[in-house]
Amino acid sequence: MATDLETFRSWAGVLADLDGTMSLLNWDRDTTMPPSGAGTRAHQTATLATLYHRELTRPEISGVLEAIANSVAIDAQTRRQAMLLGHRRARAVRLPERLVGEISQAESESVVTWREARERGDWAAMRGPLTRLVALKRREAEAISDDGLRYDALLDGFEPDARAADLAPVFVDLSERLAPLVAQGTNRPAIELPERYWPPDAQLQLAHDLAQVVGFNLADGCIGVSAHPFSNSSGHGDVRFSTRIDERNPISNIRTVLHEAGHAMYEQGFSADFARTALRDAPSLGAHEAQARFWENHVGGTLEFWRVIEPRLHELFPDAMQGLGAEDFHAAANTVRPSLIRVEADEVTYNLHIILRFELELGLIAGTMEVADLPEIWNSRMHELLGITPTSVITGVMQDVHWPEGMFGYFPTYTLGNLYAAQLAEAADTALGGLQAAIGQHRFGDIVAFMRERIHQHGSLYPTPELMMRATGHPLSADPLIAHLERRVVSSMASVARQ
Amino acid sequence: MATDLETFRSWAGVLADLDGTMSLLNWDRDTTMPPSGAGTRAHQTATLATLYHRELTRPEISGVLEAIANSVAIDAQTRRQAMLLGHRRARAVRLPERLVGEISQAESESVVTWREARERGDWAAMRGPLTRLVALKRREAEAISDDGLRYDALLDGFEPDARAADLAPVFVDLSERLAPLVAQGTNRPAIELPERYWPPDAQLQLAHDLAQVVGFNLADGCIGVSAHPFSNSSGHGDVRFSTRIDERNPISNIRTVLHEAGHAMYEQGFSADFARTALRDAPSLGAHEAQARFWENHVGGTLEFWRVIEPRLHELFPDAMQGLGAEDFHAAANTVRPSLIRVEADEVTYNLHIILRFELELGLIAGTMEVADLPEIWNSRMHELLGITPTSVITGVMQDVHWPEGMFGYFPTYTLGNLYAAQLAEAADTALGGLQAAIGQHRFGDIVAFMRERIHQHGSLYPTPELMMRATGHPLSADPLIAHLERRVVSSMASVARQ
Repeated sequence: MATDLETFRSWAGVLADLDGTMSLLNWDRDTTMPPSGAGTRAHQTATLATLYHRELTRPEISGVLEAIANSVAIDAQTRRQAMLLGHRRARAVRLPERLVGEISQAESESVVTWREARERGDWAAMRGPLTRLVALKRREAEAISDDGLRYDALLDGFEPDARAADLAPVFVDLSERLAPLVAQGTNRPAIELPERYWPPDAQLQLAHDLAQVVGFNLADGCIGVSAHPFSNSSGHGDVRFSTRIDERNPISNIRTVLHEAGHAMYEQGFSADFARTALRDAPSLGAHEAQARFWENHVGGTLEFWRVIEPRLHELFPDAMQGLGAEDFHAAANTVRPSLIRVEADEVTYNLHIILRFELELGLIAGTMEVADLPEIWNSRMHELLGITPTSVITGVMQDVHWPEGMFGYFPTYTLGNLYAAQLAEAADTALGGLQAAIGQHRFGDIVAFMRERIHQHGSLYPTPELMMRATGHPLSADPLIAHLERRVVSSMASVARQ
Repeated sequence: MATDLETFRSWAGVLADLDGTMSLLNWDRDTTMPPSGAGTRAHQTATLATLYHRELTRPEISGVLEAIANSVAIDAQTRRQAMLLGHRRARAVRLPERLVGEISQAESESVVTWREARERGDWAAMRGPLTRLVALKRREAEAISDDGLRYDALLDGFEPDARAADLAPVFVDLSERLAPLVAQGTNRPAIELPERYWPPDAQLQLAHDLAQVVGFNLADGCIGVSAHPFSNSSGHGDVRFSTRIDERNPISNIRTVLHEAGHAMYEQGFSADFARTALRDAPSLGAHEAQARFWENHVGGTLEFWRVIEPRLHELFPDAMQGLGAEDFHAAANTVRPSLIRVEADEVTYNLHIILRFELELGLIAGTMEVADLPEIWNSRMHELLGITPTSVITGVMQDVHWPEGMFGYFPTYTLGNLYAAQLAEAADTALGGLQAAIGQHRFGDIVAFMRERIHQHGSLYPTPELMMRATGHPLSADPLIAHLERRVVSSMASVARQ
């Protein structure tokens, strides 16, 4: 057993090292690498992925995992880690190498087509590659599925321990209760900041200041700039995130910093004991996203938050801030309007975009829906959910890269993140004697400490549903998110009135 | 044979990918990584090195290499590449795994000791770890040596195709002819720039401008800042270097940019056909260093060069440049003074520092010298070579990290770089109708084209001695370097006189 344990730990360590290295290759690609290095980088990433797969599926590990699973003397952390890696390994072993190759090729073809066909809204060009990819993803799901729904096998790659049958009723409940809120929000005037020049240097300084204010530890990480913001963990002691800077509007940068710092503080909060183990991770993307949405929406959407940073905004942007105050930002950040593009959607309508995608990919993978029919179904469901209809696939079914990338089962993690974030905000509200009050009193340390204790430190020691039940006392539900959005629509009205 | 070739190419590609990834891990560590990530990074690097070693020594490759070596139909590039990788593989296979582990541990111990004992000049603490390390390096040399000198086996790791017996007479010749030049240079006044403030932002801008002026392609690379400057090639299309910025003196940054851009332009000039092969490299560190020293010394040491960049210096540093002109920089950059610290040595005395180290490490590895006697031998030879004596090991035998790092056989590549750089400068002078004139006429494109044609494009297709013979028409010799330094000592006098 001692040897098995040693083998297991060294194996898990090598996997963690390769994982962290692949993260770094991506970080560098998006923040630093000259574009001409793309071909070289693609080879490096592919080679690392191959070596990771080879290491993950090493035959002799099978016996080691079995010995750990069957031992009664093993500690809970090692047992959970062996379970997580064993599960990942089983999925990898079940996938025939040939199918992996076919999928990888179909994904490349499909992404390349998407990149050049999207701009001209050329659905005819997209249909073929996407149809082939969906057929392959159905086969992938068959191959790795235990016995449940094919879709669940894909969902499991992003949100382990979730099943479509559990998510669907919550998502339906959510969509029904969002409809009146959208109507209510839309009745209010849409507020925008006046167009002014917000110098990029000062915005980058603001990103650092803000990250530090909320509790991101800059001694254990760094901040970069990239076209698509992301957070990135190379491993213990090295957590990074990037932001996006729009010279004409500072809100995108501010919301992005809160969102990515939410992800990054989660990674900084994992127990140090989990370094180089599979426990040094969130149990699911939904759990990870919940941290980001908590900071972006439940902190960043409050008037209190904007009051906290207002003085710093005046210092950094003396010209652009003339005549502007916290209320203006609060009102602008909380405007509700049905729109066609998911990534530009407000907090209220956002989840309807996800629910649409969830329904469609569920049908596609089950085989009850075909790629050829996507634009029509998309447009009609979009109209039912949000009351608007795309006039082109550019603002319809072709807007996201996820499906061309083969990421089926990924979209629901966004709404899971929103649902869990609202549940956590409710728990934080109770624990801190009022979340908004805590924000207004600059007690960000208390908020982080709450998350550290209930969520961060545990890494992936518990499955997401268990982690959330421990942290909030409730199972997954739409109630807290609906209650939060109702309050938000009302509260932001005061700021609108003061405009 | 077709299958063997395919196996070989894919194997070489994977090795190149791992090599490039390890380069990137180092680049990031020194330019971006938060210090707290050091532990994680060390694990990642060690894991990649292990996987590289495993890939390099894969048993089934042995037959593939043999088939390629025995085939008459094979092209010269593939044959050379198989020879290079086969040689690297043979060295790795011969080293017992246990010895590798012992050396790696002894190196760690020795570097850690050096880091904390150097500042207080504690030779007693250093002696033990260094003695153990030298004993292990002797065993390493025995293990990988074909039949020649033990030292040659280590030298081969940095400078393949060089032997101590060939270098020694050239180095002796050099040291004898340098003595009168040192005396001559020392008779001139030492010139320094007045201490002023050179803003770091403007210096970073200067680094970019200067790199572009000499021919570094910023579209295929980037420039960073680090404590110890270095150049770094992640692979085709992605070549980088870093510089060091001293707010009180711009010369360090300027010389560093020329030096590192010299390395980096070499990497950018490798034939594109060599991407992901072992040919995408210099044949030796000496050949690589020659490119850096050529730009640093043969371009950067001329009055013409300083005249070229003088207008830009006035634009970027209007305050600091008041009353200063090209002659001041030229005189300051060419001051000759015997000094104790190698990295601060001028162009004339520099090689004497290397010759000292070469003699000592030759004796250490041969076993004719012992670690315990190093300080005494160092001080007495330092006095013979440069006429000065360290009063402490801090400015004596403990100044460099190389030996504690186990890098025996590395130092001579610095002087080889200087010797080859002078030979190349002589050839360029002939080919371009005067190198100094070309610099004065801003014809940097012609200079780069000369290097591209004679050196860069060939990668490691030829052994260094053959490459240099093809490029310059002469074997390794001290003559061009001595002739260059004689001219330099005389020419810089004019600038001194105009001070």
